[in-house]
Amino acid sequence: MTRAYNFAAGPATLPLEVLEQARDELLEWAGTGCSVMEVSHRGKEFEAVNAQAQADLRELLGIPSNYQVLFVQGGASMQWSQILFNLCRDNAHGDFILTGEWTTRAVAEARRLLPLWGGSVNIVASSADRNFTYIPEEGTWQRRREAGFLHVCTNETIQGLEYNFVPQPLGDVTLVADMSSHLLSRPVDVSKFGLIYGGAQKNIGPAGLTIVIVRDDLIGKARADAPRMFDYKLMADNQSMLNTPPTFAIYLAGLVFKWLKKQGGVAVMEARNIAKARLLYDAIDASGFYTAPVEKKDRSRMNVPFRLRDEALNDAFLAETKAAGLVALKGHKAVGGMRASIYNAMPMEGVQALIGFMRDFEQRHG
Amino acid sequence: MTRAYNFAAGPATLPLEVLEQARDELLEWAGTGCSVMEVSHRGKEFEAVNAQAQADLRELLGIPSNYQVLFVQGGASMQWSQILFNLCRDNAHGDFILTGEWTTRAVAEARRLLPLWGGSVNIVASSADRNFTYIPEEGTWQRRREAGFLHVCTNETIQGLEYNFVPQPLGDVTLVADMSSHLLSRPVDVSKFGLIYGGAQKNIGPAGLTIVIVRDDLIGKARADAPRMFDYKLMADNQSMLNTPPTFAIYLAGLVFKWLKKQGGVAVMEARNIAKARLLYDAIDASGFYTAPVEKKDRSRMNVPFRLRDEALNDAFLAETKAAGLVALKGHKAVGGMRASIYNAMPMEGVQALIGFMRDFEQRHG
Repeated sequence: MTRAYNFAAGPATLPLEVLEQARDELLEWAGTGCSVMEVSHRGKEFEAVNAQAQADLRELLGIPSNYQVLFVQGGASMQWSQILFNLCRDNAHGDFILTGEWTTRAVAEARRLLPLWGGSVNIVASSADRNFTYIPEEGTWQRRREAGFLHVCTNETIQGLEYNFVPQPLGDVTLVADMSSHLLSRPVDVSKFGLIYGGAQKNIGPAGLTIVIVRDDLIGKARADAPRMFDYKLMADNQSMLNTPPTFAIYLAGLVFKWLKKQGGVAVMEARNIAKARLLYDAIDASGFYTAPVEKKDRSRMNVPFRLRDEALNDAFLAETKAAGLVALKGHKAVGGMRASIYNAMPMEGVQALIGFMRDFEQRHG
Repeated sequence: MTRAYNFAAGPATLPLEVLEQARDELLEWAGTGCSVMEVSHRGKEFEAVNAQAQADLRELLGIPSNYQVLFVQGGASMQWSQILFNLCRDNAHGDFILTGEWTTRAVAEARRLLPLWGGSVNIVASSADRNFTYIPEEGTWQRRREAGFLHVCTNETIQGLEYNFVPQPLGDVTLVADMSSHLLSRPVDVSKFGLIYGGAQKNIGPAGLTIVIVRDDLIGKARADAPRMFDYKLMADNQSMLNTPPTFAIYLAGLVFKWLKKQGGVAVMEARNIAKARLLYDAIDASGFYTAPVEKKDRSRMNVPFRLRDEALNDAFLAETKAAGLVALKGHKAVGGMRASIYNAMPMEGVQALIGFMRDFEQRHG
């Protein structure tokens, strides 16, 4: 078969030319006589990959020089704990905004650990009352000035919510953001955040790599009982090579960063992502056959959940899209229905093909 | 250039036919229309890969049914902490045998954490007195009957030491072994161990995957302050998919397991590894030009450190081997000299080529 248009939420579609390059040099890479998977992370060839990937990510996001860029392992789920071990030595009071599945899980970990350390968890605001279909208005937030940090997830992959503003903590409270599913899809003012983290498997590369961007003044303060590998300071001091890093994943992320630069950077990607998302949401809204549950102002450009009004047609929709080379459209079980994830690597043609199919399906079944 | 013989200690050489298969299906895998890197870990195609990899590893090592096989992230370095968070809730007294770089680092982590939990670290035996060139005789070990566990590293990658016997803890003390650099190179009686762990990047697959094999009665007892992702029980209950696993690394490890089964399993590999190591050590010992520092009885079959008697020739040796397609022979900086890592995927022809080169080099410079 040929390549499908892959709407998976993550691991997700990657740029075709990145995969082609990886394939072409999989057995012999960079004149080493080896696969990139087989070379030492301490050799000059891989050290150059690691340094270039970090430099390109810095350039793409305009990361200020007083921030560290770390390549770690374990996914966002590991960060829910690792952040606490790094930020909560002196202040274990955490504020959270609850907007969906990922923030719910982050809160659960904080509720388990912070009380053990004399701290507390406060839910600043929540949209659980309406099935996480909106971002709570900033005016309603119950922020604590004495909190150590305010945690948000700026794109909820499962519910399909995205912040279109930078949340504002009170005073000098540190802003922490899970950006797993929209990092690099749009410009971001990194200087407004103390810490940004995300799994790679959406817009960046294969699963198994996690990105942490953290301000210098927040590191070097890990709790005494933190696992050594959790310590951001040690990771930063060792260029993320405190031990063997996930070398193939870093290499592939580096190819994606180069591809993004070639496209024109994240501002260009944002324009494309706005156009792709508008086209898809407009098609859904214009139809009487499909519905999108999220409030318009808070809709994610990356993850587009939608439903068929007649859910008895779900199985037919999934079977026919798959046969048409439009794959992984089933929504997360927490939400149901369908979800089209349209990350950077999803071309406009893929979105157009999906919309074309949806119209055809509606004509046949509507 | 063509493929080199790659003697790197890890990330290390992989079987050529595994890399060829990965290359051939890198863009379109298993009829999905996607790369294996791009598919959901929750889809039936990847779930089958995950389950088959686990089943094949169980078969290869004859892992008893009362052991869990976990695929995790972070490397052996993360396990140094994770093991403690899982095993030391009720007893934080750890016994360690010190035989080189990796056990030294494992001990350092235990010395940091266990006292915080009311526990202690005891060095049962050490070969530091002679630069870690031997495994201390079991008769000299100062084991504690009250220890929670006895930790060993059964193959020290940097020093090139390998246990040729199963260490015996006192009473019901749990035996914990770092087998990173010789797992799957020989049969092992898993039932003698409570917990076996290792990074994949030697005999298994790409960096970014870590294997944990743990007996059922040791899980479900994580400390209350353990990071959630550290909890072996949660990992076991979720088939290692508590969150998105390093899918590509698991896929590639699965191909290596299939390759190993096709070769005839670990007993066949052991015979080959014995033959390869014997040939190389014999060539070194027969020479007046090269020396191997490790006591014969404790020499690793996987990692062969050696020196040129005239170390002024080191740079010439490294430059000429590289030009001859024999790469990554430089010893670790903690030991110096040279090191040839000859894992499962290194064919006998590679060892013969190295020995041929070494003889030629000796003739020209001896």
